[in-house]
Amino acid sequence: MRHTALGATLLLLAMTSLTQAGKVADAAEAINSHWLVTADLHGTPIYGRLDIEQQGQKISGQFYGDQFEGSLDGNAIHFVAKDSTGGTSKVDAALKSGLLSGTVVETDAADESHSERYSFVAVPIRQEHRATPLHHEFTPSVFYREFSASNKPVLTVNPGDSIHTTTVDAAGTDQHGQRRVLGGNPQTGPFYVQSAMPGDTLVVHLTRLRLNRDYAISDDGLVGRATDSRLAVKMKDAGKTVIWHLDIDNGVASLQKPGAHMAAYTVPVHPMLGCIATAPEPSHGAPNTGDSGSYGGNMDFNEIVEGATLYLSVSVPGALLYLGDGHAVQGDGELNGNALETSLDVEFTVDVIPRRRTPGPRVESASHIMAMGLGGSLDDAFKSATANMAGWIAEDYKLTPEEIAELFGTAAEYRVSEVADRNAGVVLKINKERLQALRSKDAN
Amino acid sequence: MRHTALGATLLLLAMTSLTQAGKVADAAEAINSHWLVTADLHGTPIYGRLDIEQQGQKISGQFYGDQFEGSLDGNAIHFVAKDSTGGTSKVDAALKSGLLSGTVVETDAADESHSERYSFVAVPIRQEHRATPLHHEFTPSVFYREFSASNKPVLTVNPGDSIHTTTVDAAGTDQHGQRRVLGGNPQTGPFYVQSAMPGDTLVVHLTRLRLNRDYAISDDGLVGRATDSRLAVKMKDAGKTVIWHLDIDNGVASLQKPGAHMAAYTVPVHPMLGCIATAPEPSHGAPNTGDSGSYGGNMDFNEIVEGATLYLSVSVPGALLYLGDGHAVQGDGELNGNALETSLDVEFTVDVIPRRRTPGPRVESASHIMAMGLGGSLDDAFKSATANMAGWIAEDYKLTPEEIAELFGTAAEYRVSEVADRNAGVVLKINKERLQALRSKDAN
Amino acid sequence: MRHTALGATLLLLAMTSLTQAGKVADAAEAINSHWLVTADLHGTPIYGRLDIEQQGQKISGQFYGDQFEGSLDGNAIHFVAKDSTGGTSKVDAALKSGLLSGTVVETDAADESHSERYSFVAVPIRQEHRATPLHHEFTPSVFYREFSASNKPVLTVNPGDSIHTTTVDAAGTDQHGQRRVLGGNPQTGPFYVQSAMPGDTLVVHLTRLRLNRDYAISDDGLVGRATDSRLAVKMKDAGKTVIWHLDIDNGVASLQKPGAHMAAYTVPVHPMLGCIATAPEPSHGAPNTGDSGSYGGNMDFNEIVEGATLYLSVSVPGALLYLGDGHAVQGDGELNGNALETSLDVEFTVDVIPRRRTPGPRVESASHIMAMGLGGSLDDAFKSATANMAGWIAEDYKLTPEEIAELFGTAAEYRVSEVADRNAGVVLKINKERLQALRSKDAN
Amino acid sequence: MRHTALGATLLLLAMTSLTQAGKVADAAEAINSHWLVTADLHGTPIYGRLDIEQQGQKISGQFYGDQFEGSLDGNAIHFVAKDSTGGTSKVDAALKSGLLSGTVVETDAADESHSERYSFVAVPIRQEHRATPLHHEFTPSVFYREFSASNKPVLTVNPGDSIHTTTVDAAGTDQHGQRRVLGGNPQTGPFYVQSAMPGDTLVVHLTRLRLNRDYAISDDGLVGRATDSRLAVKMKDAGKTVIWHLDIDNGVASLQKPGAHMAAYTVPVHPMLGCIATAPEPSHGAPNTGDSGSYGGNMDFNEIVEGATLYLSVSVPGALLYLGDGHAVQGDGELNGNALETSLDVEFTVDVIPRRRTPGPRVESASHIMAMGLGGSLDDAFKSATANMAGWIAEDYKLTPEEIAELFGTAAEYRVSEVADRNAGVVLKINKERLQALRSKDAN
Repeated sequence: MRHTALGATLLLLAMTSLTQAGKVADAAEAINSHWLVTADLHGTPIYGRLDIEQQGQKISGQFYGDQFEGSLDGNAIHFVAKDSTGGTSKVDAALKSGLLSGTVVETDAADESHSERYSFVAVPIRQEHRATPLHHEFTPSVFYREFSASNKPVLTVNPGDSIHTTTVDAAGTDQHGQRRVLGGNPQTGPFYVQSAMPGDTLVVHLTRLRLNRDYAISDDGLVGRATDSRLAVKMKDAGKTVIWHLDIDNGVASLQKPGAHMAAYTVPVHPMLGCIATAPEPSHGAPNTGDSGSYGGNMDFNEIVEGATLYLSVSVPGALLYLGDGHAVQGDGELNGNALETSLDVEFTVDVIPRRRTPGPRVESASHIMAMGLGGSLDDAFKSATANMAGWIAEDYKLTPEEIAELFGTAAEYRVSEVADRNAGVVLKINKERLQALRSKDAN
Repeated sequence: MRHTALGATLLLLAMTSLTQAGKVADAAEAINSHWLVTADLHGTPIYGRLDIEQQGQKISGQFYGDQFEGSLDGNAIHFVAKDSTGGTSKVDAALKSGLLSGTVVETDAADESHSERYSFVAVPIRQEHRATPLHHEFTPSVFYREFSASNKPVLTVNPGDSIHTTTVDAAGTDQHGQRRVLGGNPQTGPFYVQSAMPGDTLVVHLTRLRLNRDYAISDDGLVGRATDSRLAVKMKDAGKTVIWHLDIDNGVASLQKPGAHMAAYTVPVHPMLGCIATAPEPSHGAPNTGDSGSYGGNMDFNEIVEGATLYLSVSVPGALLYLGDGHAVQGDGELNGNALETSLDVEFTVDVIPRRRTPGPRVESASHIMAMGLGGSLDDAFKSATANMAGWIAEDYKLTPEEIAELFGTAAEYRVSEVADRNAGVVLKINKERLQALRSKDAN
Repeated sequence: MRHTALGATLLLLAMTSLTQAGKVADAAEAINSHWLVTADLHGTPIYGRLDIEQQGQKISGQFYGDQFEGSLDGNAIHFVAKDSTGGTSKVDAALKSGLLSGTVVETDAADESHSERYSFVAVPIRQEHRATPLHHEFTPSVFYREFSASNKPVLTVNPGDSIHTTTVDAAGTDQHGQRRVLGGNPQTGPFYVQSAMPGDTLVVHLTRLRLNRDYAISDDGLVGRATDSRLAVKMKDAGKTVIWHLDIDNGVASLQKPGAHMAAYTVPVHPMLGCIATAPEPSHGAPNTGDSGSYGGNMDFNEIVEGATLYLSVSVPGALLYLGDGHAVQGDGELNGNALETSLDVEFTVDVIPRRRTPGPRVESASHIMAMGLGGSLDDAFKSATANMAGWIAEDYKLTPEEIAELFGTAAEYRVSEVADRNAGVVLKINKERLQALRSKDAN
Repeated sequence: MRHTALGATLLLLAMTSLTQAGKVADAAEAINSHWLVTADLHGTPIYGRLDIEQQGQKISGQFYGDQFEGSLDGNAIHFVAKDSTGGTSKVDAALKSGLLSGTVVETDAADESHSERYSFVAVPIRQEHRATPLHHEFTPSVFYREFSASNKPVLTVNPGDSIHTTTVDAAGTDQHGQRRVLGGNPQTGPFYVQSAMPGDTLVVHLTRLRLNRDYAISDDGLVGRATDSRLAVKMKDAGKTVIWHLDIDNGVASLQKPGAHMAAYTVPVHPMLGCIATAPEPSHGAPNTGDSGSYGGNMDFNEIVEGATLYLSVSVPGALLYLGDGHAVQGDGELNGNALETSLDVEFTVDVIPRRRTPGPRVESASHIMAMGLGGSLDDAFKSATANMAGWIAEDYKLTPEEIAELFGTAAEYRVSEVADRNAGVVLKINKERLQALRSKDAN
């Protein structure tokens, strides 16, 4: 299916967006725009994007990502969009009070006898940056346990704004040691980012990620994906909760009740966010906060630290940004099932790259760009990471498939990010030094 | 089966070892020793290890790794060794001219009616270091395409010795551009290391690994393990041979005929050995030089560079060290199938850790210890790497399973070493800084 | 976490159950019972099971699956339950008006300083079979797209009852060709089964599964899990919708517009349910109807046909049974992504096995018992299927691990059920003829 | 590399073939033939195939599978063959005494400066069926432990001939309970099949596969690929040798010393060959008899039984057929590591399909065609099985990719053949009833 469900809440937000948009110009000028489409499919509200370019009586553009050409006739437009399988969407609509209202008749290429008709309404998408970004201090009082498009936003911000807030640990305990919510990676947010629309990319820059309490909770066993039969037998009695002391001043963690050989063991802390997500497509359901996907989620990647920048796909108006599941430090893979789970003090800025698709989570540090692959096995995650990075390089540097192979063959660095959750994670990193020489004259 | 086949060549070498051992003391003293056992099993010569501790009339020790207790009666010994499944080996032997000769009757725990009898001869193992290690300059003239226990050693060296030699590239071409042998990672060696015996660990320290010609051969495609269905379609026309120019003075590689976007692309060289191996157990056959296993082999790990130390299991007398398949530089995974394949100038020292088992390849750099896992999938390789490192840490630091989990959970770093060959490779690295505090008072 | 969230709806249902339970006997008698526990954890209602055996002043039993011993003191009970990691739950409660109300103090073994206190209420669980099972004719009007514990039951039935209903196809189209709901395997149900409680097993016997329209929708491509790089390239232009004609009278399917070589191709229909599920634990979220798990779901196993019996774990009161996604016929693995998707006419009976855990979906036919494994890869699914069957055999026949290995080594039959969805599926089948001789005298 | 090493033994056999070929006609007639090419590549003898079609002065055909066009000039031929990457082989040769002798200059498309020159000799391939096939009674006296092209054939047979022989069990024990050779699946053979040449398919029809002793050896544990962490812990003490009694008259197996619950357990025997193989390409080394690949080998598929027909690729002259590793009965996957290992009485016929490539093992029974996939994981084996069958269907029935998808989607049956060895095995089966309607008028 090419449709996506939209919560009723979002329709209201879209309407709000319209109200903010101010007065509408004449029809042709108004039509020549980007639209957020909301439709009703057999009781499920869905939305998508309509991009129209108008030239005289001719219009062209994309409807739910499918190309179309059509005509403008006074306030009315007519076009037929084709998808990659040959299916068509015949659209008739009219502009009234700044809204586009109309009907769609969908026909499958192979199934012309089974066409389908539904109605829609569309509002224009406005991208306006404030002259001066705002800073928001946000104290969370509710914590969600699903990356859902239906949860009410806790704060609305603009691209460029910065937000300072806190997260509770994976078990729902805050910086004061108070349990606030049932465990399972409860999240701070969602934050609604103005102008972020399906098909855009949300950019989150983590400007501050700090410890705000002196202990973390972890386990002393190894997860199943890390243990073969023999090691599983050796580990059969392990898997108990352990407490780590966090020495914030010195930036190290040590076990509260260490075994004989770990008495002197300390490890430098590197606070990271285990979870950061946009709301996924609502028609795909609402994943619990232990899951991950193209929307980010519970990635448990230990390079999502202070200074890192995240790129995440936007699937719903406002993006609906969630974050949580702080770790004081975590080895690759989160081998204990729990890392050093703790509450965190978090500050970040948000931005939007319009009409840029991001097929999977991407991260940027001072030295590297990193593309994450998530899948049911490390083998699938590895392929997914490679494809994610290949797409990134092709978009930004226009490299041919052969050139991409040459780059990867000499510069690929793979890390295993996560083996403790339903999805395994692998990250392909490319050192930015390798990228500097990639833009040829032809590519500019 | 608990037995291992031994080529006839090795029997001769064992006899040589005996001759070198000098005169034999009285029976009790002579018996109290480590022995290399060679037996005839239905036409297949096999060998193993017999370690005897003698106290008066009592003897104890290990026979093919199984514990035994028994008795000394003049020149004769009698014992019964038990394996982990309850099977027994009843041994009767006598000392004569410094050799132990005797018979074994093997009986399975569950199958007492089907016992088996065979004869053996054993020679004492001597570990003598030379006062002054020798340096060997070795110019290869033959290159082997199988990691075989049957290939004739090209040079015999002692623990502590250093060897300076060269390797041809994966296609069999040497530093002068001359094809010397059919391709497929032909190897320099095997080198016979005196005193290295089954059950020992061979230590190879790479003191020099340098380019010795100005080009390398590679491909411009991506291997199947790196491509999902969509990327495979995009890459369908890639996979051709490409030549890289190696600028030895400046230490960088660049494409000889770059595409438009790669014209300015250079990458620093990091010469590495794709293959380094001991001869595997001969009863398991002779793997071709594209394969890998507990013996090392075609690992294609880009941290096997100048300065690195390798730890490899010894399965045959003399270890039989092979090396080859030099890469000027290789991204993680050897994604092109071929890295930047080139000939190399190689210098290394060898040493032996007696009676130390190394279940899989291990590498040490200035900063890290690294345990490799090899398997038919990344998921299996990941588990194998974790088990390999868990064993290493347990042996060297005596950590309990829970302590190992705590160490790994906070300090694990995983790299994907290889996806281009039959075995995938994953490496678990631990920063040596984390290890410094591990030895408690109890552990010393 | 050992707790599970409970929708507020369920609490109401539990209260209803109480009302039906009739008058309460004296305290000791009333206490000696099975209880459905509902608690409030930081805003999330959760539930579980309390099984009490009372003897004089002593009580023992299980609380959320953990063993306890304690005391009865008038209307009050006191006990401490221990979980497998050494954590404790100290419980104090009192009986009043047939309800148990009290508090729990949970303490982790390793974290005694961080105990947690919450309150709960429990209602008795009644298992009453009707003398005469009812037959229900049910015409669905709403179709759910998530296997959610929060969806309102459409019908309440008793163990032993039979239900006759219909399902729409995966795209939401019914037997009249009318689109009723957005696609994605919309479900008929959920059905609330009286007395089915967490920890029980729901038994669903499919007495009738028939075609009720003359066409099915499918695709002409192969999913990614079935195609290696080369086959993916060959299949690059495939993947379009195709219509199959269903000849109900003759029980065969044929392509509506076949290619040249498929003109005479027909395949016998075997109507099956792609989806059958209980509601999973609500604290784990609400999976969309394309997903699967221990609760069943979108399993796409072509032996879930008329005559088959399903065993599914119960995680919420009433089990909440869903079914949908009918296939006229499907090869192993659902290789096209869509099978021959169609609406179905369905009749089934339900039953409950109290206090019987079913770790994964199980199916029984006239000839075989079958245990399903679901996982992110075929390798994981294979292990899961083996473990699921090993548990089944151990429970029902008391076989030792060695005996299980002997049975499986001689009688295992593995099928690949599903490769088209997020979870791959593998099924281990054992012919019932092999099971007949397994019950020894000791086992009875 | 596109070349394949050839043992010196094979060259002799090829020469023998020539001698048998009788007198040579005139040059043009003689040239117009199929040739076995033997070349010397830097010390490694290799071979391949040259197929020439001559028309006047023009010749065309295939050289090592690459297309060429060229010219005939008296006794001399000249042509240039191109491979799929654009590389060329320039060939100049002359006919003398029925042999073609000449030189090849190979040039890579991307590396014109590095061409390579070598010489070759070619002998004509004759396919002559005897009027009356012979029957051979063969009593083995030597048993090989590697599927090697270098082992001396024990018997030379013609297409159409039948052979009656015996195999020892996996441990090397024969039908009299005598250990004949070290264990590890020692093989009967290799049999040299006249006229079988690289690029052909060997057909082996198993006409008789019977028990010839009254016991089998097995284990009582489960292999690692079948056990997740929890099941591995439960199975930690399993894995001992067990003896099964084979009741030949009644065709059932039962444990010699059953546990309490297995006392009455019997299972019908289905004698099968665990190993059947041709010699793989010698330049790829000589796999031990525990391994498998495109050549067959240790497949452990329980449908390789009496009545089955095997199709195996031929990689060396004479094919060199090996067989062994009989199992009295084996559940899918060979879960115990050892099946019910026993000696067997075997009769089979051989045939050759000239110039037919078989990319992986294929099996045919009365009811099904079956394509095997072998890989390092079940996921890879699954893809490989699907590709193997897709190739088979495309060759034999000319189906388009879309038609193949439609066939598989409705008719695929997948079995897991093997999880106990280095390669996992999956088999895709298609019922022959589904194939009957596939040949359209256009396809004939």
